[in-house]
Amino acid sequence: MKGYGKVMSRLDKQMEFIMEVDKIKTINRQTYITGGVRKENDAEHSWHLALMALLLSEYANDDIDVLKTMSMVLIHDMVEIDAGDTYAFDSVGAASKEERELKAADRIFNILPKDQAEYFRKLWDEFEEGETMESKFANALDKIQPILLHNLSDGKSWREHKVTLEQILKRNEFTKDGSASLWDYTKEIIDDHIDKKNIIG
Amino acid sequence: MKGYGKVMSRLDKQMEFIMEVDKIKTINRQTYITGGVRKENDAEHSWHLALMALLLSEYANDDIDVLKTMSMVLIHDMVEIDAGDTYAFDSVGAASKEERELKAADRIFNILPKDQAEYFRKLWDEFEEGETMESKFANALDKIQPILLHNLSDGKSWREHKVTLEQILKRNEFTKDGSASLWDYTKEIIDDHIDKKNIIG
Repeated sequence: MKGYGKVMSRLDKQMEFIMEVDKIKTINRQTYITGGVRKENDAEHSWHLALMALLLSEYANDDIDVLKTMSMVLIHDMVEIDAGDTYAFDSVGAASKEERELKAADRIFNILPKDQAEYFRKLWDEFEEGETMESKFANALDKIQPILLHNLSDGKSWREHKVTLEQILKRNEFTKDGSASLWDYTKEIIDDHIDKKNIIG
Repeated sequence: MKGYGKVMSRLDKQMEFIMEVDKIKTINRQTYITGGVRKENDAEHSWHLALMALLLSEYANDDIDVLKTMSMVLIHDMVEIDAGDTYAFDSVGAASKEERELKAADRIFNILPKDQAEYFRKLWDEFEEGETMESKFANALDKIQPILLHNLSDGKSWREHKVTLEQILKRNEFTKDGSASLWDYTKEIIDDHIDKKNIIG
């Protein structure tokens, strides 16, 4: 993208980043979209989480900064451009995930001008650490959204991967810390799919 | 989605909306993503615009409320779930576009609880009217983003549709009202693709 614009080195960097992260549209997840027609990608997932952050902020366990939370979820999966999507229940991939993602964060966010690179890196670190209310809520949404979609496609992805209740509960260990009421809601969906034998109880 | 949750009629409506708008992932546009491998859909496009609103707000012609602008772009294409994507240079489709989209807005936003339905409808109306600074900037991003992607895929979509400079300038009549500097930047990309014969000058 470089070379357009006049006194534009800052804008050139921003535009280069905006085009680089277009690649997130090619990173597929294990979640099916509406109708189970195909799997979701990270851009679609991030759009969905930002919308959920906007609509469901009232259910966070404490007050949150909605703009910060939306920004966090918009960028939370960008590291997967280099590191790939590590499926939730892939224990082999999980072992090297942190290292791969840290390296990716170093490269990708640093395409931006320094101030924005630092802001995005801080925001991503905050999401990964999950200590603040915003990051607890963002992490809760990140775990709940695929469950909503799995429900919408009648548990297809759970069945394909022979997922157990134990795996889901482990993965959702901290979901209630973001939102007790959204976790209650989600738990009922899970129970329903145990009854339907889509999740191994 | 109904039936989960305890005293949850409000949350049921919100969740029903969140699942209904998943369909936006199936609405394809005429823009190619990175590498020209396939066309972009509305969810991916909306994610990209929200990110751009966050990163590029400094170039708006006047101060903007970033949260409001991000929210606006996240929802601006939801009406296409019912109305479909009307390609930018489809004059036949354009004639019935407004009516189809108004009907869609009535149905889709009203899935939400009343306060949120009204807020989203107001936000969408504001985007369509393009009178406020936020909506001018959001509309500018909505026009600029496909141009950035067309550039990234070497003008493939412009060539396929035999697009003329006149069509692009007409479509971008108000882009400079959102951001004069982003329009300058974009104009240089357009000029470059006239030189390359990807746009008919």
